[in-house]
Amino acid sequence: MTTRIDGDRLLGDLTALRKIGEYKTGVHRPTYSPEDVQSRHWLSARMTEAGLEPEIDGIGNVIGRARGAGAKLLLGSHVETQPHAGWLDGALGVIYGLEVARTLGGGIDVAAWADEEGHFGSFIGSRSFCGLLAEEEIDRCHNREGTTLRDALAQAGFAGRPRVTVEPGRHLGYLEAHIEQGAELEDTGKRIGIVTAIVGSHRFRIVFQGVQNHAGTTRMAIRKDAGVALVQLASAIYRRFPDLAGPRTVWTTGRITLDPGAASIVPGGAEMVFQFRDTDPALLARLERELEALVAEAARGPCTVTIAERGRSVPKTMDAGFQDALERAAERHAAGLHVRMPSGAGHDAQVLAEKMKSAMLFVPSIGGISHHYAENTKNEDIVLGCQVFADAAAEILGTGAR
Amino acid sequence: MTTRIDGDRLLGDLTALRKIGEYKTGVHRPTYSPEDVQSRHWLSARMTEAGLEPEIDGIGNVIGRARGAGAKLLLGSHVETQPHAGWLDGALGVIYGLEVARTLGGGIDVAAWADEEGHFGSFIGSRSFCGLLAEEEIDRCHNREGTTLRDALAQAGFAGRPRVTVEPGRHLGYLEAHIEQGAELEDTGKRIGIVTAIVGSHRFRIVFQGVQNHAGTTRMAIRKDAGVALVQLASAIYRRFPDLAGPRTVWTTGRITLDPGAASIVPGGAEMVFQFRDTDPALLARLERELEALVAEAARGPCTVTIAERGRSVPKTMDAGFQDALERAAERHAAGLHVRMPSGAGHDAQVLAEKMKSAMLFVPSIGGISHHYAENTKNEDIVLGCQVFADAAAEILGTGAR
Repeated sequence: MTTRIDGDRLLGDLTALRKIGEYKTGVHRPTYSPEDVQSRHWLSARMTEAGLEPEIDGIGNVIGRARGAGAKLLLGSHVETQPHAGWLDGALGVIYGLEVARTLGGGIDVAAWADEEGHFGSFIGSRSFCGLLAEEEIDRCHNREGTTLRDALAQAGFAGRPRVTVEPGRHLGYLEAHIEQGAELEDTGKRIGIVTAIVGSHRFRIVFQGVQNHAGTTRMAIRKDAGVALVQLASAIYRRFPDLAGPRTVWTTGRITLDPGAASIVPGGAEMVFQFRDTDPALLARLERELEALVAEAARGPCTVTIAERGRSVPKTMDAGFQDALERAAERHAAGLHVRMPSGAGHDAQVLAEKMKSAMLFVPSIGGISHHYAENTKNEDIVLGCQVFADAAAEILGTGAR
Repeated sequence: MTTRIDGDRLLGDLTALRKIGEYKTGVHRPTYSPEDVQSRHWLSARMTEAGLEPEIDGIGNVIGRARGAGAKLLLGSHVETQPHAGWLDGALGVIYGLEVARTLGGGIDVAAWADEEGHFGSFIGSRSFCGLLAEEEIDRCHNREGTTLRDALAQAGFAGRPRVTVEPGRHLGYLEAHIEQGAELEDTGKRIGIVTAIVGSHRFRIVFQGVQNHAGTTRMAIRKDAGVALVQLASAIYRRFPDLAGPRTVWTTGRITLDPGAASIVPGGAEMVFQFRDTDPALLARLERELEALVAEAARGPCTVTIAERGRSVPKTMDAGFQDALERAAERHAAGLHVRMPSGAGHDAQVLAEKMKSAMLFVPSIGGISHHYAENTKNEDIVLGCQVFADAAAEILGTGAR
């Protein structure tokens, strides 16, 4: 059998999917939006054409099963996007799966996991598949606009359907391809990244409570300015974290709000959303202790400061054998132009890794741009990545050259 | 003639006005909202009952003219409120004017200036009256929801009406009563504040431009995080300003926004709204030079930083003779319980001071709370303040005891 993928067919499908929810040069396809639902039905039709048996399940996962007996390899990613984001984030891995299924002609299941982008929760699609999403959690989830997950599923037409879960013994493992979403490959002239581990992240909401008052009449000495308390804590974090961090640790304050947020009012409330990521669990624990110490120090000022966890994930090491298979395939098609690297972003593969051997392949992101409509990857890199992915899949399935 | 005000009548009118746009224990009456328009018509009717000749003009100012010949004293403030704010901010001074007009029975004009609270612009009502508001500025004004001032005036029914301007020679001057909006009177056990000067304020919007990227995949070393740049500048301001400030200088960051403001995205843009206030023009100039130096320093980092002026007002000294009249009246009714103090808040009196002698009286704010529905003043302080105001007005008019 051949493992030669069809680059034009691959790019054609990616381009067709891009049209659903097109926004500037990117895509706006939030989970369960009409465009997202349309993309799932579109994908389901493509799976049927590819000879797979597709199903859109009760959480919105699109799963295309290969016919016939024998162990299968599961390939997937996601089709929904961040708001006004790029055309390849997620879509690339799903269409790679479809193209590899078409190329190998058997042994490949393909999945598009719902809501990897976290509009309603944390990896709810892949966690549902892995049996790690309780009904009670579904009851609680909602998006930023306040729409509940239950209502969104009903509106999408997915409510009441069974949720498909992993079938014991069916899969040899899971492979996911994704754009890098960083600039390391581009900066070092590499074309393929083989993911060694997916970082763990600790995410927090830090709330400051002071006293709202008039910005002209309230003397500095008696103010309890929640915004000042926030700025001082954020500043302390930026000063302290570099001393504790490893070479790949990242930390980010993504959102700051002052309440009420008016020019002439001393903010009585303030809030920051903060996170840090690394592949080393001990380092993550050290950073968390330091953050707690800085919060305790901030709370000795005039405002109350409270920290609440918004979620955490543990670092996940990728399967060593799968990494080797990806590396051999990369060396065959892009000798010397591949590198092993951790993933700073979270991916469904970290969930699937709970249930089966998992690994990931990265292709370069132009300029490292991600979560923005300007996100892109060169066509030749898209095609090369899929070829490497197909070869590795074939090797793992035992149908390709070793 | 008597200068004995009717405390029950005063409180009754304040309570009636409070019902228009009532929100919790406060009032929601943004400029030109249906409730605000209703309050202007209500006031106009009260003026008629008080023997004044009312007019709501083309900018929404409600001006009640005393009948008869001779010089008049102008008393006023405003009736619109900040969003979900207090019942006395503005309303107190207007109803004081009405009550003094009723008590003295002549010689008092009463005004409610439109939009002192700045929903559409900066002191547009009092500036219109003083001939300091050009039609072109009216064309440009809009509120935060994007409604233009022209549309709001049309919807309010005020478009096309003439704008009333100051009549040369008519007024001996302008007096405005207001809640303190700070806690100085309460903290020092005083019941009356006599305003020496109204602070000047310099207001800025500072914009940071970096590069938006993924919070997991973008290494710290290559980030251009606009939020970090903002936090560092704000922190530098908080460190540096205390060394330059006078005992009454205040500075405030009232609003911070990060763009796009998502947990897992390195902010590509950020914005802060910053202001400082003092009564000393030289000190204000020094602070502005320091701010510019800190911005220039911040701009040497990885993000661009631009600062734009959002407005400024110059400090205004209140008329010395009027201050003396207010002090004598305060000493008569609250011996030893009055104090001269600057106003940290801006008021229409600073605009009127461009055209005539002007002065202000403050009554205590419970807990110093302002721009919040919990704002309040003790009834006995409300009544006392109006009595002092009436006595001072009578003295200035030459009809009261000296």
